[in-house]
Amino acid sequence: MLLPEIDFAYDEPDVGYQKVRLHFNENLFLPEEYYRAVAAPLEPWEVRYYTDPNNKKLAAAIERYLGLPQGSVVITAGADEGLRLAMQLAAHMGRGIVIVEPTYGMARVVARQVGLRPQIATYGGDLSLDVDGILKLGAGAVYLCSPNNPTAHLVKEVEELAAKFNGLVILDSAYAEFAGYWRPRFYEYGNVAEVRTFSKAWGLAGLRVGYVVAYGKLAEALRALSPPHPISSLSAKIVERALEVGRPYVERSVEEVKEVREWVLPQIQAEKFAGPVNFVTLKVQEAEGVAGLLEKRGFVVRVLGGKPLCPACIRFTLAPRPIMERFLQALTAALNNRKQQTKPAGGV
Amino acid sequence: MLLPEIDFAYDEPDVGYQKVRLHFNENLFLPEEYYRAVAAPLEPWEVRYYTDPNNKKLAAAIERYLGLPQGSVVITAGADEGLRLAMQLAAHMGRGIVIVEPTYGMARVVARQVGLRPQIATYGGDLSLDVDGILKLGAGAVYLCSPNNPTAHLVKEVEELAAKFNGLVILDSAYAEFAGYWRPRFYEYGNVAEVRTFSKAWGLAGLRVGYVVAYGKLAEALRALSPPHPISSLSAKIVERALEVGRPYVERSVEEVKEVREWVLPQIQAEKFAGPVNFVTLKVQEAEGVAGLLEKRGFVVRVLGGKPLCPACIRFTLAPRPIMERFLQALTAALNNRKQQTKPAGGV
Repeated sequence: MLLPEIDFAYDEPDVGYQKVRLHFNENLFLPEEYYRAVAAPLEPWEVRYYTDPNNKKLAAAIERYLGLPQGSVVITAGADEGLRLAMQLAAHMGRGIVIVEPTYGMARVVARQVGLRPQIATYGGDLSLDVDGILKLGAGAVYLCSPNNPTAHLVKEVEELAAKFNGLVILDSAYAEFAGYWRPRFYEYGNVAEVRTFSKAWGLAGLRVGYVVAYGKLAEALRALSPPHPISSLSAKIVERALEVGRPYVERSVEEVKEVREWVLPQIQAEKFAGPVNFVTLKVQEAEGVAGLLEKRGFVVRVLGGKPLCPACIRFTLAPRPIMERFLQALTAALNNRKQQTKPAGGV
Repeated sequence: MLLPEIDFAYDEPDVGYQKVRLHFNENLFLPEEYYRAVAAPLEPWEVRYYTDPNNKKLAAAIERYLGLPQGSVVITAGADEGLRLAMQLAAHMGRGIVIVEPTYGMARVVARQVGLRPQIATYGGDLSLDVDGILKLGAGAVYLCSPNNPTAHLVKEVEELAAKFNGLVILDSAYAEFAGYWRPRFYEYGNVAEVRTFSKAWGLAGLRVGYVVAYGKLAEALRALSPPHPISSLSAKIVERALEVGRPYVERSVEEVKEVREWVLPQIQAEKFAGPVNFVTLKVQEAEGVAGLLEKRGFVVRVLGGKPLCPACIRFTLAPRPIMERFLQALTAALNNRKQQTKPAGGV
């Protein structure tokens, strides 16, 4: 049997949970008290039976919570599945997709997985988006992320794009709550699929729950592409509980992220991408080397390379101040070490 | 924005958990003791963090447990996602797919979701599979289910098909443990993706954990099409625990299913599809009407219609004997009621 050539696999080593994980942008600010508050005991019937088809109950709970119209929320296994449903829809539309780089690396992978060969557009040096330039590419869909990973900026041109574009805007808003946007903002345009998650600000990455917000027929089409039971019944139960009692904890953590960010930024001697999110991206020379030195000190960061605006970067998740104090020491040492190593050996 | 025509959505009403659910073939024989044994408490770090990429730890645990080669298990969100990955691969292969009917209804839906337009083959009246006839259709992939849902028979021709076919065999073995097959049997052919689940015999449908077993490059290709974090960390933990301590409970329940099946079958006056699974399918007139009468008595069954060999059927999950005693009463009443209603009014 001849298999197709597949050159887009996602894989990375498991670094475990003993080192300080600063590479996945999990919310590291939520206290154990939050997790005790949202915890739900295991009941036999909840694991024995399938969830309700299409998780209508949880979708309705999110719609009520955010004041969204009935039927506008499609439950997904994390934001990644939200991307997949939207990109699968783009594949059905048959006019290709544009991905605006630098951005979340899985966007390209998911596009390829569903059979799309993405065209690449690029943010300008001032992080502006050339909406007319994108429209000229003639694709049926555009993926962008706001606040964007890894540049941390809010994309100001989403509304302009949604208004001008006769195609699907896949808006990845995984970090929106850190920017104060709890409620999806652009779905009413009718051509925007806004991808959300409980994995970032809500601190529930391990549960694998996300959702797409879209309007009317677009939501229906996404739901038609969804599996009937994408998430576990325990995850649904805990997320429902988080909606009931968790918001104050999450809001406080978002405040704390901001405070730590403002305290951290001036102390780093490197070119930075920073914004209303729980991570910071640094342009460094020899990103792999810096990350390797950090890992020796117990900190795992994300290495980004070969991207527009981001030829060699490391991205780290913001963590509570005691961790950041140790991290800043390690980072300073790593950056200095690399500088020394890359100095010319002679005095010429 | 012009959306593509989508006529394959899966949807059904949520019947809740108060009625006796005999429509999803969950394992209704496992005792609370089993669920207490596999239960795992919620730890903050387990829900805060993402799972290890591609769930390597759980995949390795299943490989060890079943004596499968390293790398042969791909973790999925239930069997449905296993089908999706395999069908997505078929879509990449570009030579279409054959689905052998009557079979699991989601097979057609998933095929359409990933952009395939399946060709339909049909089991013979004796439930035999015309392997050469299928090969002549020239497709790149074949989906079949064994033991098959809804006909309950073991497909005897899987090996012949795998050996003769220069394409992908997607073998849905969701019910295999009920037939005594714990270990996948055909993956070594290299062109068989065997789809398994913890939702049926293992009694853990709410956790959404399944896996695909495949060999070498086929497993790699399926993994490349998978999202990095398909299942929740709590689900992974409970399934690992089930592998450690759950097997005796599951084996006992499989025995009990068999005993109840053998006790139930002679008492039903209708044409039956029965075999080594935890459900029975009945050919009835006016399947909707019979199901409606059963629902009034508190039993939810699956209505199947318009399928080859199964123009009008109801399928019910086998449950412990006290439930089946009540169900048989309701079923007999419903079948008689329909018969009376469909009798000619006059004596002619």
